[in-house]
Amino acid sequence: MLASSAVLRRQHFLIRSLGTHNNQNHTQRIRYIQTVTMVAEADAENILRRITPILDPNRHKGQAGKVAVVGGCREYTGAPYFAAISALKLGADLSHVFCTKDAAAVIKSYSPELIVHPVLEESYSVRDDEKRAVSTKVLAEVARWMERFDCLVVGPGLGRDPFLLDCVGEIMKLARRSNVPIVIDGDGLFLVTNSIDLVSGYHLAVLTPNVNEYKRLVQKMLGSEVNDQDASQQLLALARSIGGVTILRKGKSDMISDGYSVHTVSIFGSPRRCGGQGDILSGSVALFLSWALQSSTAPGDSTTSLSNPMVLGCIAASALLRKAASVAFENKKRATLTSDIIEHLGQSLDDICPAC
Amino acid sequence: MLASSAVLRRQHFLIRSLGTHNNQNHTQRIRYIQTVTMVAEADAENILRRITPILDPNRHKGQAGKVAVVGGCREYTGAPYFAAISALKLGADLSHVFCTKDAAAVIKSYSPELIVHPVLEESYSVRDDEKRAVSTKVLAEVARWMERFDCLVVGPGLGRDPFLLDCVGEIMKLARRSNVPIVIDGDGLFLVTNSIDLVSGYHLAVLTPNVNEYKRLVQKMLGSEVNDQDASQQLLALARSIGGVTILRKGKSDMISDGYSVHTVSIFGSPRRCGGQGDILSGSVALFLSWALQSSTAPGDSTTSLSNPMVLGCIAASALLRKAASVAFENKKRATLTSDIIEHLGQSLDDICPAC
Repeated sequence: MLASSAVLRRQHFLIRSLGTHNNQNHTQRIRYIQTVTMVAEADAENILRRITPILDPNRHKGQAGKVAVVGGCREYTGAPYFAAISALKLGADLSHVFCTKDAAAVIKSYSPELIVHPVLEESYSVRDDEKRAVSTKVLAEVARWMERFDCLVVGPGLGRDPFLLDCVGEIMKLARRSNVPIVIDGDGLFLVTNSIDLVSGYHLAVLTPNVNEYKRLVQKMLGSEVNDQDASQQLLALARSIGGVTILRKGKSDMISDGYSVHTVSIFGSPRRCGGQGDILSGSVALFLSWALQSSTAPGDSTTSLSNPMVLGCIAASALLRKAASVAFENKKRATLTSDIIEHLGQSLDDICPAC
Repeated sequence: MLASSAVLRRQHFLIRSLGTHNNQNHTQRIRYIQTVTMVAEADAENILRRITPILDPNRHKGQAGKVAVVGGCREYTGAPYFAAISALKLGADLSHVFCTKDAAAVIKSYSPELIVHPVLEESYSVRDDEKRAVSTKVLAEVARWMERFDCLVVGPGLGRDPFLLDCVGEIMKLARRSNVPIVIDGDGLFLVTNSIDLVSGYHLAVLTPNVNEYKRLVQKMLGSEVNDQDASQQLLALARSIGGVTILRKGKSDMISDGYSVHTVSIFGSPRRCGGQGDILSGSVALFLSWALQSSTAPGDSTTSLSNPMVLGCIAASALLRKAASVAFENKKRATLTSDIIEHLGQSLDDICPAC
């Protein structure tokens, strides 16, 4: 019952978002200038407390979150694992990975906790005359699971094989038709930058670009270079140009915008820049935005960004990753790796929202 | 010698169960209403003490339990691993897994402690004209091990491939002919719900359905919906409709019935509902019911449910999983995963039955 009410909430959020987007140009313009907010530690903690569900013994498996990561190919296996296990370590009940056959055995071997589906195919393993049939089969295998997911993460370790990216584009269309939120990172952003219609106008989409991915998005959508003097205005313009998706621009400070306002998260953090931290972030955004959607009940909530579940999910994930990274760095210093940060996710969240 | 006396005990239990079932209709009807029992912590601990064998240096490998899990396919590898390793961590001497070739390498990689047989096949890897021969070969490979097992767990990570399920049905018939107890969970329950004859009337079978699996069983066998107002009576009726199998209905409270009485376990527990806890339970039920069968000596013991080794195994496993989960949750809170719970199985049992 809770699962279906989560589906309903996603639909209501989409309807409200579209109404807001079409009818409030004047109000938007005012907010456009006014609402550039630095998120204080206390604010981030309040958001985490607001969206994190109570652990109720009456709930059953799945109700605390079911996340799926689309990623993992012949070259990359760590990234989808980091994204999927991060969601579990923060409290999700089930975490799936959809990847290629080559990647599946390895990702499975990292952890028996993940459900790994070896369904994607790369060009080298498919003849040209088989491609249409293989693509249909891949989509059918993902389709039978889609309705069960609270959020999809597209991109960690996806690679850039054209055939695989075509299939993933179709998976994104399927998610969108099913009103399943999508977090897009890594090579998913490469795909989306070249096919912006996949996310344009979809208020349940979150993009999490790093410096290079952001640069390509700005060039493509705004036809300009990144302007750090007027970073907030440019981010707002970018989010609006893609029709109300939420963007989390990763950097020394993370900047988050849904096209209405900008929130900057600079708290905590670690100076280590080891690979994989973006994958923790994408898995965490997926879980937190699912929780934010579940906890969003008041009608009209989405008329300000701080009641937009996508924005709340981004702020929560940004703040929590920074907190876990700072604790891991205190312990491991230069030797800190992504796995060390993941081991501190649970305690970092529990410090803010005690489980009992 | 002990192994063969365990086989004899299973035969005696079956003979006694059948006698009880056929000749005590009146007595049963009285018990049918009277014996709905809440299992207190002290009762569960007494059962655990009663069935857990003493660690005697004179015993040899295998006498503390040999369990086999039938499960693990292209999609699922974590579930059979969790079930098999749980039995070992509780004190079994040997734990086998029978799975597909795809799954075998991954499951082996989780732990060198398991004996993993890559013998099952899914439809995609077998041509239609080969199926009969492959099925015969699979059965022959399992058959040469069957007599050695104290219990079979069928279902964790089995998947729903029709050809694979057909083979597993044959494996269950073989186990039944050999009087090997069978614990059925997950996709094994999907198989059994559609082919109830596989377990009907088999007193050495235990079914461990979750909320959805229970619903399908009730619909199939009783032609009605789940009735939570009269849950005990419905569970009794369900167990009786399948001819005296034991059912452990998982939930906030676990309810256990062999068709004569109902025992409810609500002690301890954790509010985390991460996937995989059901697999710990199935592996634990398998080991504890084997121990309960080994320790059941008094003739006529099985005329009350609390001397039915299947029921004792279920109560013991339910209580112990809940205890281990509560300890794991105290340490890891929301970050608690199934592997964390498994790490506390041994200590949780030792707190109740010190090994020395």
